[in-house]
Formats: sequence, structure tokens, C-alpha cells
Amino acid sequence: MSISTASPAAVSVFGAERVRDAAHVRGLIRQGHWTSHTSGLAHDHVQGNVVILPEVQANDFLRYCQRNAKACPVLAVSEPGQAALPTLGADIDICTDLPRYRVWQHGELVDEPTDISPLWRDDLVTFVIGCSFSFEQALMDAGIGLRHVQQGRNVAMYRSHIQTVAAGPFAGPMVVSMRPLKAADAIRAVQITSRFPGVHGAPVHMGDPAQIGIADLAHPDYGDAVEVLPDELPVFWACGVTPQAAIAQARLPFCITHAPGAMLITDLLNQQLASF
Amino acid sequence: MSISTASPAAVSVFGAERVRDAAHVRGLIRQGHWTSHTSGLAHDHVQGNVVILPEVQANDFLRYCQRNAKACPVLAVSEPGQAALPTLGADIDICTDLPRYRVWQHGELVDEPTDISPLWRDDLVTFVIGCSFSFEQALMDAGIGLRHVQQGRNVAMYRSHIQTVAAGPFAGPMVVSMRPLKAADAIRAVQITSRFPGVHGAPVHMGDPAQIGIADLAHPDYGDAVEVLPDELPVFWACGVTPQAAIAQARLPFCITHAPGAMLITDLLNQQLASF
Repeated sequence: MSISTASPAAVSVFGAERVRDAAHVRGLIRQGHWTSHTSGLAHDHVQGNVVILPEVQANDFLRYCQRNAKACPVLAVSEPGQAALPTLGADIDICTDLPRYRVWQHGELVDEPTDISPLWRDDLVTFVIGCSFSFEQALMDAGIGLRHVQQGRNVAMYRSHIQTVAAGPFAGPMVVSMRPLKAADAIRAVQITSRFPGVHGAPVHMGDPAQIGIADLAHPDYGDAVEVLPDELPVFWACGVTPQAAIAQARLPFCITHAPGAMLITDLLNQQLASF
Repeated sequence: MSISTASPAAVSVFGAERVRDAAHVRGLIRQGHWTSHTSGLAHDHVQGNVVILPEVQANDFLRYCQRNAKACPVLAVSEPGQAALPTLGADIDICTDLPRYRVWQHGELVDEPTDISPLWRDDLVTFVIGCSFSFEQALMDAGIGLRHVQQGRNVAMYRSHIQTVAAGPFAGPMVVSMRPLKAADAIRAVQITSRFPGVHGAPVHMGDPAQIGIADLAHPDYGDAVEVLPDELPVFWACGVTPQAAIAQARLPFCITHAPGAMLITDLLNQQLASF
């Protein structure tokens, strides 16, 4: 199943005037009217990466997130067995409110359903982890162009050689996203993203990719390559794919994540995450 | 006359326990006991670049500073003919309180006295302009090493091809200071110096020097060259030498500045300039 760019079709499905209403969009996703990327939907609102684990692994995973908060900023953790996430939206039902899920068994992808109600269990705990969509919106609002957005591509992501701090079975490299920026925009981007510690915060690196173990920017490990022009610096942020890589490496008997790009749309506004 | 690094000798002149007291240090300078660099003296306190001009040029110069605030952040402007700067220190007498001055006629350096009382006129206006010592202290307090400080050198400064916005006779290139930093420190330095808009604020450039018209980092236009290691980025800040370059270019019939590195020590604390 392919996941294509959402925005133009989304407007026709949702109506341009309602595409900014998080609860409305979430309701349509719940009813199965949208099974693709959430990029551009309800774009003033915080979207989140989702990880659903049995309670027996949840404590280790929460410790992993705490120890690697820049890559794994936790926006909410559910009660075991509860599909609600009341701090993120009064009506959220995590079994139905993502456009598409990924079901994993022993580290292997086994299914990509649009509803996980049949798989729900009393011991499952949901983690919602901040995502770079929030700070990308702040960058664009400040007039900083993002090439992958302009070109309708997914952001380029790489496994760095920066190691995360392990907790229980969870470990592995920090995955970073890269955005090419001119120096003045890179400086401004440090300022802007520093205001958003809950969605990865300031960059972790800029300049020479080899210093963080990236051999070739033209071959990202996830997402799509974008060109870096001669007058640009590659700027690297900790990425929410990091916990997914740690989960894959842990080869858990069972877990569920969102499908790439098909995020949970919350009622929080991106600006509510700004720290000053 | 050579101006050498102040700190070790300063301690023996002033006594280690009093070297942090701005008014005490200023009093000793006033009495002629110190005629050199102020680097490291009263280091919790704001130090300032000084420009003293006839009132007939002062309005143009103030407009020049306003239009180029990143390079020329004005901390105080005196009343014409008044040697006092009460917002910077109750007892300041600008005629005596710098270790050494430079007297300029038609753009030429004609004298470097330690007291300008004989030259004082009723039409002279004093400008005190923020200096990078303030943010350097904040960087070092955050554990970021500065190579020129470690090596006891003056910071490396370059005429960039970034043009300032002219006002009256004042114009010319932005002079930038350069500090080599590893990427993580460069990112942290953007965060820290952004808090100090009154002393040049965030960097204006990082990475490729050629993009701002600097052909060779090994040959600074002012100050001392420092090595940039392979894993470092050169990081560039707007520099308080910019207004001096504009004044030299204007070839004013008469003006006075501080001698390089021999700054006005004020009663303000560096932390009072932090914007958040």
C-alpha cells in the first residue's frame, strides 16, 4: 500500500475550511475516509508518532525515552488498556484515530491495518512522541523554506553513529533528519527550534555529515534524498524514527506503531509547545 | 606602545579579591595605574567600545548605529559636553576612565594618550557600544572553550563583504569576529548569544568564509589568527570594530576612540543584558 502526499486530496475530502479543525479531521480518519499521510492536515496542531507496547515492556520504553529525550520527546502515555489520551484530545480513540498502523511481531512487519480494535488488549500502553512537523511549521511561518516540503518529498533521515542510551531491550543509533539551509537560516533555525524542546528542540549537528557517521547524504536510510546546494549547510535534528529503530532492534514479540507519515492529530496547538 | 594581555599582571596590581569590583578597577585606571587591555578585569561586568564625536556628527552616527544595531549595539549616549555616563556607572568620567585612548584627525591616528581631559570640548558626545566580552563570558560559563582566550590572543576579526547601511558620512563593511567551534558548541553558542542582543547577539554566519567575502582565515584584518580544526566550523559574529571602520572611512576632522582592547568597564553585570 502506498502512502502519498496528503494535502491536495485532503482538501477535497475534508473541505478547505475544515481541514484545519483537528477533531473534524480525526473524525474523518476514524470513519476510514483518510488512510494516508497526515502532512499538511490540521497544520496548526501537534501531530505525534505513536508506539503501542505491552505493559511488560512499557517501563523500559519510558526509561529509554527519558534517557534520550531529544529523539524521543514523550507528549503523552496512556493508562494500560485505555484507548483514550485525554491530555491530547477529549475524544481520541487510539484504536481508530490513525490513518494507518503498522503491526510488528518479533521485529517483523506483519500487517498495516487502518483500525486496530480487533488487536486491542488490556495490557497495551500507548506512547505519543513529538514530531518535527511542529517545528517545521514554525520554521515556515518564519519564512524559512524547507526543500523537502517545497518538493513534496518526505524529509531525509539517516542512522547516525551517535548511540542512544539503552534501557532494557531498547538501544541503537540516533536517527537524525536533515534539512539543507543557508547559514543565516541555519542560525535562525537554531533559535526557533530551541523554543520547541517537546518536539526535538535545537539541532544536534550541522555541517560535515561524516562527523556523525553519515557517509553519503544522497542515500538516506529513511525518507527521500534532497539536494544540498554549495551555499547551504546540512542541519541535523534528532528524529522520532529513533524509537522505532530501537523497537525494531528489540524484536519485541508484539507492538504497534503508526505507519510512516500517518500520525496522530492532536488538539494541542504547535504554539502551545513553544517554551518562550 | 604595546598592549599586552592584562589578566596576570592585573591581579598583582589590583589584588585578586578586588579585580572583580568594577568601580575599584575603574578608579585605579583613572589614577593611571593601568594602561593596557581590560580583558579579564572585572569580568562579570559589561565592558564597552567607546566613540567620542563632535555633536555635529553625533546624530548621523547614532542613526548609523540604529541601522546596524547588530554590529553597533548602543549601550549609552552622553549629553553633549558631559563626561558622565550615569546609566553605566555613577562615578564614570569618560576623560580618564579608559586605560588608553586613540585620537584621530581626518582619519589618521595622531595620539594614544591615557587621559583626554586636555582635549575635552563642550560639543563632544560619547557613545558606548556593546562588546563581545559579555557574551564570551556567557559562553565560557557554559563550558564552551574559546581558543583565542585559551591561547592568550586577541580574537580574529575580518572585513566581510556584508555592507552596513550608511548614515551621513558613516558607511563601510561589517567587521566580523570569528571563533572556531565544534558543531554542537556552535549550536549551543547560537542559543547563548541570542540571549544577548545588546552585545551583538546571535552569529551572522557560520561555515564557508568565502560566502561573506573572507578569502583567507589565516590572515585576519584585525586581531590574531587562530587555527580552525577539521572538525570545527568557523562561527562569525558582528563586531564592535565595525563602527571604528566606519569612522576611519568617514575621515572626520576629529574624534576619539578607545585603544584596541582597552575598554570602558561599567557597573552593569553581563547577566543584566541577558534577554531571557
